Amino acid sequence: MSESLYVVGGTVLTMNAAMDILENGVVEVRDGKIKQVGSADSIAVPAGARTVDARHCLVLPGFINGHTHTGMGLIRGIAEDLPFDQWLNDVILPTEKRWGSPEFVYIGTMLSCAEMIKAGTTTFNDMYHFEEASARAAHAIGMRAICAQDLSSITWEGEKGGSVAERMDEFRSALSGFERITPALGPHAIYTVDRLMFEELISYAADNNLLVHMHLSETKEEVRRCLRENNQTPPEYCNALGLFNVKTVCAHGTCLSPSDIALLASRQVGIVHNPESNLKLETKICPVPELRHAGVAVGLGTDSVASNNDLDLLQEADTAAKLQTYRKGIGTLTAQDTVRMMTIDGARALHMDSVVGSLEVGKRADIVCIDTNKPNAVPLYNPYAQLVYSSTGADARHTMVEGELLMEDYRLTRIDEQALLDEARAWGKRIYADYHKPSAGGAGSRGPQDSALH
Amino acid sequence: MSESLYVVGGTVLTMNAAMDILENGVVEVRDGKIKQVGSADSIAVPAGARTVDARHCLVLPGFINGHTHTGMGLIRGIAEDLPFDQWLNDVILPTEKRWGSPEFVYIGTMLSCAEMIKAGTTTFNDMYHFEEASARAAHAIGMRAICAQDLSSITWEGEKGGSVAERMDEFRSALSGFERITPALGPHAIYTVDRLMFEELISYAADNNLLVHMHLSETKEEVRRCLRENNQTPPEYCNALGLFNVKTVCAHGTCLSPSDIALLASRQVGIVHNPESNLKLETKICPVPELRHAGVAVGLGTDSVASNNDLDLLQEADTAAKLQTYRKGIGTLTAQDTVRMMTIDGARALHMDSVVGSLEVGKRADIVCIDTNKPNAVPLYNPYAQLVYSSTGADARHTMVEGELLMEDYRLTRIDEQALLDEARAWGKRIYADYHKPSAGGAGSRGPQDSALH
Repeated sequence: MSESLYVVGGTVLTMNAAMDILENGVVEVRDGKIKQVGSADSIAVPAGARTVDARHCLVLPGFINGHTHTGMGLIRGIAEDLPFDQWLNDVILPTEKRWGSPEFVYIGTMLSCAEMIKAGTTTFNDMYHFEEASARAAHAIGMRAICAQDLSSITWEGEKGGSVAERMDEFRSALSGFERITPALGPHAIYTVDRLMFEELISYAADNNLLVHMHLSETKEEVRRCLRENNQTPPEYCNALGLFNVKTVCAHGTCLSPSDIALLASRQVGIVHNPESNLKLETKICPVPELRHAGVAVGLGTDSVASNNDLDLLQEADTAAKLQTYRKGIGTLTAQDTVRMMTIDGARALHMDSVVGSLEVGKRADIVCIDTNKPNAVPLYNPYAQLVYSSTGADARHTMVEGELLMEDYRLTRIDEQALLDEARAWGKRIYADYHKPSAGGAGSRGPQDSALH
Repeated sequence: MSESLYVVGGTVLTMNAAMDILENGVVEVRDGKIKQVGSADSIAVPAGARTVDARHCLVLPGFINGHTHTGMGLIRGIAEDLPFDQWLNDVILPTEKRWGSPEFVYIGTMLSCAEMIKAGTTTFNDMYHFEEASARAAHAIGMRAICAQDLSSITWEGEKGGSVAERMDEFRSALSGFERITPALGPHAIYTVDRLMFEELISYAADNNLLVHMHLSETKEEVRRCLRENNQTPPEYCNALGLFNVKTVCAHGTCLSPSDIALLASRQVGIVHNPESNLKLETKICPVPELRHAGVAVGLGTDSVASNNDLDLLQEADTAAKLQTYRKGIGTLTAQDTVRMMTIDGARALHMDSVVGSLEVGKRADIVCIDTNKPNAVPLYNPYAQLVYSSTGADARHTMVEGELLMEDYRLTRIDEQALLDEARAWGKRIYADYHKPSAGGAGSRGPQDSALH
């Protein structure tokens, strides 16, 4: 048994059922778990004990990013302000085809993890190609992750083929020993995975009690096509396939009907809302208040950096709350609601709320301390509003996973951040140069914005 | 004549007419002005010269916040997720009435200025009560500001009465010697200022060549009432009064008709878009692409921290671009467009583009260096997209006004930041306690969220 670590001096937002807030609270951490949560009056911190200084901090469960493709870390900003088809078909897919490899995914994920830890995120729910490389990166930097192997019809050179069972057996075997990483299945979407493969993967998920992570009802076109081909909405189609008999979390849900919402609620399907990606790709706004009212667990996600372009959940929460104010009126999605989406409700959406999502005895010690000793965060009247409307990920001071500080006083503990940045920059230069091979060189004012990509 | 200062090693986004970008650019600053802008090849930096290290930075004209009420700095987050009328009438106005004083405004503005400088803003366009206290704070911390004395029918205890001329003469006299501060007139809105006062202030503005700063067409109710009472839209009403014969900048413009837009364009009225405040207060989305297309100069603003709740223009630009994508389609307001709104177009909207807004020889040396040596900003393919979609104000490393570094390597140079935070926190405690005078005390879990305000 290891010695205890005490997070002291902060205002603790427990996110427990009573939504208790403890001013000058203490969280005792031991063996990677939360041993005690209480006020400084009620918990004695032994002299000489290890402590984490959380003065002027809001102390919360680490943030949960419910939908990511972290392996895209190296292509942030490569195609901007283009129509969706052009963005996807002329730039994103060809770039992935040209550069996609385990190394590309590993370094992209490492970069994404560094960004997330620095913004207070402790868990992410990922889906991509060569996902085993993402799992390796997350393991190396210490984050908690659910890693879903992409099982769509889009495959990259070098990716393993075979049945779902063969691919998943090998994937799970590669992840064995990664204690903070949970394998999952990633059927990309109903339009990239056929009926047969769905049946195969549902069966595999059921046999192995694994989570299924997919995109659902993201665009009007997806819904139209599904209605045309199957006479069912996408959730109805998935339900008929038997998908909702297994643990499922779906990203987006921007085009859900009231009956879809009722169906998702009755089948305990989690939904992850990605407001900035939805806005940027010109889709619709997810009916979050309606989903929450129906009892659906709704988490918050960033999607990838190619369509956001950051991994900061506090900015996402800000956008989420304001968008619903615009859409449905003030108070329909409050600051407190969105903090729930980043923590306990996000954990519920991922079917892991028994493990993380609140600061309660017995749960894993995944904790973030958000610094309010800054001009953007004083005075402090309402901690939820301050987090969502005034703070950003840049205010995360300490980030802890499983009782281990992955960031302490704004510094990453496990990796050499500058070496990572230099490596990512070198990759970027190669990718950029490749697009400009026949370049004629240019005047002093030539800049990246002249790229054929933009 | 002072010695030169050289900003070296960064990628310079000049925001000049050609939108030149200089990789490894140099900006030479002397006597508060820009003396040279060019590539490192073309500008020799003398040995031993004073330099500002901008390696891995994007170097831009300092950001221009086109609409603020900085004196509200102490009441950020005091009333959240409440219906507008309740927010305004039950909390904001009574709080201002109870606490409003030159000291309250001074410390609130100082806090707002600290936040803005740390987010790369060098100029702000303000309007509030006791505005002379805001001007004093901006002067003390070194920012450039246009300070408009509120001239509405809402007056606070201790505020001077009298004619517009009397009030403005006294106000301008109080500001004399504040070289970076420009006085302006602030008729709050058409529904708080009567016809007679408008005539008086237009005449004063014309005689003294001063800017008029007001709210315009912010809500549907404002438009409906103006049509009912005057048979004119708000811009038509203002035009008929003669307001647009003087330099005018209007905040919001969320409810403009096509003919309003044509009128504003023909009269060279500047508009300042405040997307986050508009969303948060449940108003509409300003037709920014239509205004720009018509030739209107459109700037970007945050509004006050009571309705945003931050003063970070990079976050505002992100929201602005994505909202128009949602509203009108991808590419209707690009990342580059929103960077223009924060700089040169914002300067045009404030009728000060001959002074600031671009990095060009002879303009004032107001410069910001945004650090891209961070996990959220590598690799860098498109500098405008990186700024708007990936960076936040927290990435501002150096902020310079009139050739003087107000922030160097993330540290404010003119003030003791911790002392300011402590003072603001003490104010907050008094304001909070006042609302909880009959409080019965409470259990350990009692927190600010239990406030009667929320």
